[in-house]
Amino acid sequence: MKVFVIGIGLIGGSFTLDLKSVMENVEVYGIDENEEHLAKALELGLIDKKAQFEELIKADLVYMAIPVDTSLNVLPRVLDIVKEDCMVIDAGSTKEEICKIVAEHPKRRNYLSAHPIAGTEFSGPTAAVRGLFKNKTNIICEVEKTAFKLQERALEIFKAIGMRIRYMDPSSHDRHIAYVSHLSHISSFMLGKTVLEKEKNERDIFDLAGSGFASTVRLAKSSPAMWTPIFRQNKKNVMETLDEYILNLKHFRKLIDEDNFEEIFSEMERTNHIREVLNGINKNEEFKIVENGK
Amino acid sequence: MKVFVIGIGLIGGSFTLDLKSVMENVEVYGIDENEEHLAKALELGLIDKKAQFEELIKADLVYMAIPVDTSLNVLPRVLDIVKEDCMVIDAGSTKEEICKIVAEHPKRRNYLSAHPIAGTEFSGPTAAVRGLFKNKTNIICEVEKTAFKLQERALEIFKAIGMRIRYMDPSSHDRHIAYVSHLSHISSFMLGKTVLEKEKNERDIFDLAGSGFASTVRLAKSSPAMWTPIFRQNKKNVMETLDEYILNLKHFRKLIDEDNFEEIFSEMERTNHIREVLNGINKNEEFKIVENGK
Repeated sequence: MKVFVIGIGLIGGSFTLDLKSVMENVEVYGIDENEEHLAKALELGLIDKKAQFEELIKADLVYMAIPVDTSLNVLPRVLDIVKEDCMVIDAGSTKEEICKIVAEHPKRRNYLSAHPIAGTEFSGPTAAVRGLFKNKTNIICEVEKTAFKLQERALEIFKAIGMRIRYMDPSSHDRHIAYVSHLSHISSFMLGKTVLEKEKNERDIFDLAGSGFASTVRLAKSSPAMWTPIFRQNKKNVMETLDEYILNLKHFRKLIDEDNFEEIFSEMERTNHIREVLNGINKNEEFKIVENGK
Repeated sequence: MKVFVIGIGLIGGSFTLDLKSVMENVEVYGIDENEEHLAKALELGLIDKKAQFEELIKADLVYMAIPVDTSLNVLPRVLDIVKEDCMVIDAGSTKEEICKIVAEHPKRRNYLSAHPIAGTEFSGPTAAVRGLFKNKTNIICEVEKTAFKLQERALEIFKAIGMRIRYMDPSSHDRHIAYVSHLSHISSFMLGKTVLEKEKNERDIFDLAGSGFASTVRLAKSSPAMWTPIFRQNKKNVMETLDEYILNLKHFRKLIDEDNFEEIFSEMERTNHIREVLNGINKNEEFKIVENGK
């Protein structure tokens, strides 16, 4: 099977690593604008060969893991080139626009719109790891618009690399993901900004901040090249989540200002319920660790 | 040495575990309003005996790790009881009020005001772990007001359990800590609240949220009983940090609204600088892991 990966970073690179470990006769071709990334991917064994766009005609599977604005240009061009039974999957974090852009494409049925909830704050080929997708959710949008045979093939691969599948329409996907992912990134970036602005003396942050701060601003290490187009594409939903978040912060501030600490206590106690929710997420992660430990 | 720990939870319990592993002839007495916690602490070997307040007269060292509002009542009473050469340390996350409340106490020189930056989102005696303080910063306030002999003894203990020392005045402490710790907790609690309000169907959060969300809302698991009095005592500073955080969020929202994605990119790129800051924090954590691994 000839697999072409467009964008050989954390997601693309981890995908090829897993694919090679669960399937035989996989030959991986890498396409990336960044020559250094391509060279590194070759060196790390994420890909077997560098490739050009025109070679996509040979592909049995194309996996796209590039910024979501670039995807809007690249996906139609990929579909134009690939052969009849080639499957094209994209891994972007927004789904509404990309589904729209290929809605009328003659090869729409070759495309599967998927979003693996497996990102980290790291990026580039050196961030790729085996097992990244194990016990992670893969959200598939508009599954009914993909050819049935290709759906089957995709599900086989996702199952083999350990992913759980969840089906959603693109608009619900973008709305939910704004809450559980995009907002976290903004809250983290702005927290980092607020502290960096205040603590001009960085030695102070080193010394005074603990693991709690580190955890809360972890996502502020994320790649602006990846996240700017996400916020642009998901503008409406992201602004709505931001409005609600800001309202909640203002309300909390008001309660402090009014010395209403009984209500401050209750607010936090109610939100403690997030423990059980996080236990659910961690339980998935634990499975992963146990299974990897085998 | 007779050590009395008042409040035998994460911090108090971890302190006694470390103390016992670095010093000989340590006898630990536990005082806690919560009878279950006391029983658990005894069972876990965090303390050797339960004790009453009146027994504090026997103490060579008193370590207080209780909510910061309770401390304001308890510390003067402890100082009233303890003998001349007893050292009293409190571990609270705010320092201005507690230093004020004992400023004129006849035994002020027996008190050392310290804040170990070692908390986690967990609490209670079952959260106590050996090595919690290794390579963590201990902020000491108004060191000059503590008897020199007791300072020496305290530093010996802190050094033995692996802590770095940083001296600060209480008012600077509370201002800095509002940024690098208290604000993180509020941002996390309000993020958790925003998502819980929106995602009534919790299965959705389980399925859709990844490790990024888990990391950003981790602190929303923290104890309201501990955090409410912290926000009350540090009201002025906390409100200031919140104002700046809200301003930054609103500015980010405005940039999105105006489609100024160049500036969105730059905002994130500038804040990426937090990577180096976090590397500093993690480097300390790595030391810990390496040394524990010995």
